[in-house]
Amino acid sequence: MDFDLDALNIRALARGCAVLGTGAGGDPDLGVLMALHAIAEHGPVEVVEAGELDEHACVMPCGMIGAPTIASERIWSGDEGAVLAGLFAELHGAPVAAVMCFQIGGANGLLPVAWAARCGLPLIDADGMGRTFSGLHQQAMRVAGVSASPVVLTDGRDNTVVLRAADDLWAARLASDAAASFGGVCAAALYGMPVVRAADAAVEGTLSLALRLGGALDGGGIGRTLAAVEQVLGGEVLIEGKVVDLERGDGDLACGSATVQGSGSAAGRQLRLELQNEYLLALEDGEVRAGVPDLICVFATDTGEPIGSETLRYGQEVAVVAAPGPAVWRSPRGLETVGPRAFGYAVDYVPRAGAGVDG
Amino acid sequence: MDFDLDALNIRALARGCAVLGTGAGGDPDLGVLMALHAIAEHGPVEVVEAGELDEHACVMPCGMIGAPTIASERIWSGDEGAVLAGLFAELHGAPVAAVMCFQIGGANGLLPVAWAARCGLPLIDADGMGRTFSGLHQQAMRVAGVSASPVVLTDGRDNTVVLRAADDLWAARLASDAAASFGGVCAAALYGMPVVRAADAAVEGTLSLALRLGGALDGGGIGRTLAAVEQVLGGEVLIEGKVVDLERGDGDLACGSATVQGSGSAAGRQLRLELQNEYLLALEDGEVRAGVPDLICVFATDTGEPIGSETLRYGQEVAVVAAPGPAVWRSPRGLETVGPRAFGYAVDYVPRAGAGVDG
Repeated sequence: MDFDLDALNIRALARGCAVLGTGAGGDPDLGVLMALHAIAEHGPVEVVEAGELDEHACVMPCGMIGAPTIASERIWSGDEGAVLAGLFAELHGAPVAAVMCFQIGGANGLLPVAWAARCGLPLIDADGMGRTFSGLHQQAMRVAGVSASPVVLTDGRDNTVVLRAADDLWAARLASDAAASFGGVCAAALYGMPVVRAADAAVEGTLSLALRLGGALDGGGIGRTLAAVEQVLGGEVLIEGKVVDLERGDGDLACGSATVQGSGSAAGRQLRLELQNEYLLALEDGEVRAGVPDLICVFATDTGEPIGSETLRYGQEVAVVAAPGPAVWRSPRGLETVGPRAFGYAVDYVPRAGAGVDG
Repeated sequence: MDFDLDALNIRALARGCAVLGTGAGGDPDLGVLMALHAIAEHGPVEVVEAGELDEHACVMPCGMIGAPTIASERIWSGDEGAVLAGLFAELHGAPVAAVMCFQIGGANGLLPVAWAARCGLPLIDADGMGRTFSGLHQQAMRVAGVSASPVVLTDGRDNTVVLRAADDLWAARLASDAAASFGGVCAAALYGMPVVRAADAAVEGTLSLALRLGGALDGGGIGRTLAAVEQVLGGEVLIEGKVVDLERGDGDLACGSATVQGSGSAAGRQLRLELQNEYLLALEDGEVRAGVPDLICVFATDTGEPIGSETLRYGQEVAVVAAPGPAVWRSPRGLETVGPRAFGYAVDYVPRAGAGVDG
């Protein structure tokens, strides 16, 4: 079902993207401003399904890479998408028919909206992750055998990089290092593919899902939030309580673990969260209650707003929710890339009931 | 005057390149082995002047970038040059007519010989520096207004990077960082230009100079070395003596300063050397005796061999020699890029008598 992204629904999209960030992906606020500005100047962005486009044209999965905290303090030129699309068309030998978010979670669900508006291109109702992952290679297209290369990067200030890597892990490494060279963040397009492949290779329906989720999350407090997450994502509350312990990594403050002490009907229970940018595991009494690629989200009890792993703090009252992740990730090939073991945890993935976004 | 590089003169070339390294540029030995191997397989490499080639074809200045110490421990595939040339031809829309060393000093005077042999291309009797500099932007082509971009990089293991930078400083920064991503070193081609520009933009005659210099340096000890450097480079001995003080930077062991206490007829004198990979300044009683872009070389008194700034050590008996640098660098525009102030020294360049390589 086609729809437009315009000034009326961008903020709802952003609320949905924030939840799908599962603790990471950056603050969508800057993306909202950029998208609103671009839409005001260039008109609404059409959201389409891949099947409607010329099958030989090229789909451009894109977003920012690097440190979200730097991204939110940086002034983007707005032309990043056009620069990426120009290089992409040249490298793929085909016009870019549509823009796609490579990551629907966090700010990367919004930036491509701004770029699509400025380029006059539609957005595909799909993304590469169905949530947020920090690894650039953790894309559904990789499971489908699409190559990350050529990866195209720009800082929006006349610097561009084209990477052709030996494999997707090298592509991710080189691109991340280039983002660091650019001062911490840059715009990227990768996993380019013909339209005919996008329908199978990407996680379908995630833009409309984020919009639906964000529409249901109308700022009505924690009760309304939990109802929306249950209804739209098939989420289940794992615990409500207080953050009583928080360990952060020496080098990376977004990595570590947190312990939530249950309150109310959960009194006496403890849930331990493992985090590496995203919330990746929820453990209770040594058992996995939920694990990546399923979604683990943390909400502030007082506001109902999602809490990022970087801003989670000791003493905070929270609700922890788990929801089934995209089906593509729950396949054996998907789990190789984004199962708990891919993140260094010596536990197996235990599927949650429910279909997931694309199931 | 055209000539061939073959198994008989490669070692002489390497001796000359080591001196033109002015303390840096890496050990030419690995380059010698690679060049000999490539010549044995593919035949000698023709050294030509730019004027002999199709003026619309493309000249490819190339070499390795990154840490020379890592380069010498690394196994190169040998195909780096062909990968660079393939991308270069595509990006410049013209066939590569000839390979050129972007830096004649150190190992980078040899690696392009190996690549030229394998590609079946001639080498131009010129280079981008006329010596060694550590900054990728410190190229004569920059003074002539040729752009560093597109910069092409490969690790010789199926990873390639194409950089188009806002300016040459960004190009240097992004390329150096990419070399770090590749584990510390990679092959690079940059400052590509049509043949018709190469004759003016590059430092001419430096391959034949290095060969002439290396031929005169026949391992006959320090006396013969000093005579060769005087005769071929117009060099002057600044001091002979012993290294009595050596301070190295905390982060970078190749940066710092060294003091040579004179002996024999120089007894009672002290010469202070400032080094940043290359030997950049020689000071006596607070006065500049010699300074970049002029060449400062340090030779071991016992062997007559050049000593790199990384291997210079306390107590070593040495002779310090200065020779006029390439004319292109002694111009006002050249000094902006490679004069003492470009390296952070608050002193002006004082020209040495003599013509320099290209004067």
